[in-house]
Amino acid sequence: MIDIFPEIRAMALAAPAPSAPARPVATAVDDAFVAALVQLLGDRVSTAQAVREQHGRDESYHDVEAPDVVVFPETTEEVAEVVKLCAAHAVPIIPFGTGTSLEGGVAATRGGVCIDVSRMNQILRVSTDDLDVTVQAGVTRKQLNEHLKTTGLFFPIDPGADASLGGMAATRASGTNAVRYGTMRENVLSLTVVMPDGRIVKTARRARKSSAGYDLTRLFVGSEGTLCVITEVTLRLYGVPEAISAAVCPFETLEGAVRTVIQTIQMGIPVARVELLDELSVKAVNAYSKLDNPVQPTLFFEFHGTEAGVVEQAEMVQAIAGEHGGGDFRFATLAEDRNALWQARHNAYYASLRLKPGSKGWPTDVCVPISQLADAILETRKDLESSSLMAPMVGHVGDGNFHLVFLVDPENPDDLKEAQRLNDRLVERALAFGGTCTGEHGVGLGKRDFLIAEHGEAISVMRQLKQALDPQGIMNPGKVLRP
Amino acid sequence: MIDIFPEIRAMALAAPAPSAPARPVATAVDDAFVAALVQLLGDRVSTAQAVREQHGRDESYHDVEAPDVVVFPETTEEVAEVVKLCAAHAVPIIPFGTGTSLEGGVAATRGGVCIDVSRMNQILRVSTDDLDVTVQAGVTRKQLNEHLKTTGLFFPIDPGADASLGGMAATRASGTNAVRYGTMRENVLSLTVVMPDGRIVKTARRARKSSAGYDLTRLFVGSEGTLCVITEVTLRLYGVPEAISAAVCPFETLEGAVRTVIQTIQMGIPVARVELLDELSVKAVNAYSKLDNPVQPTLFFEFHGTEAGVVEQAEMVQAIAGEHGGGDFRFATLAEDRNALWQARHNAYYASLRLKPGSKGWPTDVCVPISQLADAILETRKDLESSSLMAPMVGHVGDGNFHLVFLVDPENPDDLKEAQRLNDRLVERALAFGGTCTGEHGVGLGKRDFLIAEHGEAISVMRQLKQALDPQGIMNPGKVLRP
Repeated sequence: MIDIFPEIRAMALAAPAPSAPARPVATAVDDAFVAALVQLLGDRVSTAQAVREQHGRDESYHDVEAPDVVVFPETTEEVAEVVKLCAAHAVPIIPFGTGTSLEGGVAATRGGVCIDVSRMNQILRVSTDDLDVTVQAGVTRKQLNEHLKTTGLFFPIDPGADASLGGMAATRASGTNAVRYGTMRENVLSLTVVMPDGRIVKTARRARKSSAGYDLTRLFVGSEGTLCVITEVTLRLYGVPEAISAAVCPFETLEGAVRTVIQTIQMGIPVARVELLDELSVKAVNAYSKLDNPVQPTLFFEFHGTEAGVVEQAEMVQAIAGEHGGGDFRFATLAEDRNALWQARHNAYYASLRLKPGSKGWPTDVCVPISQLADAILETRKDLESSSLMAPMVGHVGDGNFHLVFLVDPENPDDLKEAQRLNDRLVERALAFGGTCTGEHGVGLGKRDFLIAEHGEAISVMRQLKQALDPQGIMNPGKVLRP
Repeated sequence: MIDIFPEIRAMALAAPAPSAPARPVATAVDDAFVAALVQLLGDRVSTAQAVREQHGRDESYHDVEAPDVVVFPETTEEVAEVVKLCAAHAVPIIPFGTGTSLEGGVAATRGGVCIDVSRMNQILRVSTDDLDVTVQAGVTRKQLNEHLKTTGLFFPIDPGADASLGGMAATRASGTNAVRYGTMRENVLSLTVVMPDGRIVKTARRARKSSAGYDLTRLFVGSEGTLCVITEVTLRLYGVPEAISAAVCPFETLEGAVRTVIQTIQMGIPVARVELLDELSVKAVNAYSKLDNPVQPTLFFEFHGTEAGVVEQAEMVQAIAGEHGGGDFRFATLAEDRNALWQARHNAYYASLRLKPGSKGWPTDVCVPISQLADAILETRKDLESSSLMAPMVGHVGDGNFHLVFLVDPENPDDLKEAQRLNDRLVERALAFGGTCTGEHGVGLGKRDFLIAEHGEAISVMRQLKQALDPQGIMNPGKVLRP
């Protein structure tokens, strides 16, 4: 394998400082500026150190980089006023949902104003007739589904964390249900956003399709706060399926599990979820959630459909698994059993961190065409076997998407260097297989250099767009594209 | 209804010239420029009047506006060379697929070079394992499906015309299957494009999902040749369903037909196609395709699934139709019967033109949230009943999308004025219902002024994008956004 990321390796070798370096406060954020924010939002403005640090941190190994001030607007109009003030003083703006990002997306690399949308938590309208909903950006996916409980509808996108829907749109999130229902790309019908100069823009109407002009909705989905602040999101909803069943199946080998997934997808069986956990992840999940799954590579499935359809799907997948060393299917058809199963899966990240007490997680994900998934996973497995680092693997494998969590001591340069080396090789391999450097975590700070290898000349187009829409470079500076 | 399009009405009242006004040749297109094109492409350059006129014409009432020269490149690199030459001389560029657009998208409003991609007709790769394909932009949808015949896969998007896949991507086309399979927005995985300065850009990898940077793919899908020239398209494919059946059902009333559609969609029945024809369309189709359908509002259905699933879907829809005055379902399960049925539907546009010999079609389409479809269609029907113009209605109603074809004598200003009046009211109503001014035909020349009413401030963002990527304004000038 050729070394295509020498610059990244060089950076890793330069041994990152164990804590964030002292960063001067952005010059424009002085007492008068904060007073102007207070004028707009009253007591919904904070410069307390604990609040600032909490907002400069995500759930990964990235250094805490605190903003100078955190604001808590409640409406699109308030966001627009804050943005206008920032624009007038060239102060950076960092949108913040629940802080569950994994690539340093909320780090305030140049200080500035963190716009925390957690108080924008209103569900503005639900249309059961049109199967759609409009929410403020701070509404979380669990809050939405709780609200929908009596309607017979649900919102399927589920990245594990109880993230805000604005944040999920901003990172183009997906997760376990994407194999059946798509990602935020397919499920956001429209956005209300505040542009870097304070203009309020609605990107589209509620019609299911449109050919009326440029697709601003999808330009902003996945833009990670670097082009605008997302304040409202209109989403597709789906009818709760007549029948749902979930099942767990252990495999003799990792390859058998992956081949089962590939064949399931290639046969067009409409599984709603198909998740891979390697032995190490199963071990972690068992310990964390007090379960007794056999410590083997394991697939978690969920089937949605009519009563007959769900049985039919499960039987077809069982037959495929049987050809690839799959053991018995353990089914969970009761809602509470299914919930326990998926909660255990969702806790895999936190469970992994317990495998090495005191460690931090360096999570990474790639996505490849399904035909390449077995090679991509098995070659990665070989890398891990010869490494000093522990790195459980999980995956939304029906999409060709899988994750590693490198368990690192952030104060140990060797750990960081080794994680960087493995991550380089993972991404390099994914790109060689026609895949992408991130299926769903986003670019943030952590994957910027990979973008160049992935996109080539397209990066120059992305830079043109960034320059056109945010000429001052105040929107979430340093993320996605290197300044 | 308030008159929100006074400027458009004023334009229509100004009585368009019966034939295209004389337009001076773009200054830069002189003999030396044409010689430089010949240097690049040899005899694949034409300045013959018949060729030029053919390329300045689409299938609608819009005036013919011929380009100065037409070129026939065969590769992305040749397109890039042509674009570089045009950029150096600020010569307009108009991409051309099959000329089946409906809103004047290929009219050379400022002359320039028409890039006809019909010789870019190679299917570059098919992956049956990944269910995807990469084609040159000139490959048509029928050519692709013919090529896929032995693979068990198919490409579902079907706008009726045998359009090029590059053109379909450029207009964000959809059509009869979109209710089940989505539009070009959901089915283009990646594009190769030539930017207005000649850069060749690949917008994405083949992975089914990605969070790696801005979504250039979807920015360019639907950009109608105003941001770049699409030269290659990577598309999702689907397995041919185990069972397919189609059915035709006449209704006592238009309202009954529409209510059947609404309830079918709201119940989540996964119909693959559901098409509405009003009485006038049925009459036209009967005459054109020598059929004897009862001259009543009629729904055409197609069901895809397992043998049992298809029967189940059809039974559910029959029950719904029965409650809304639907007659007997006439089924077509043999492929040749189904093809005849859909060919008749696809010929509805040409059939309509025969209703008024010598007329031209002024086709228009809008799309509304499904809950508003009955009101939108029934109010439109009232408009038509009191109008002097004949205007058959058809619709991909499962998406909330429906079409009118105003049959106009383009030399009769009263016809054009009346069509404009009805079109204004149609769009105004769609927007009032939360819909869009075009579900799938695109903006071209015909719907530019509606965009402002639809998008408001978002138009200013679209203008920023256009200015950033095409600062000379040479890409398909005058389309989508008024200069």
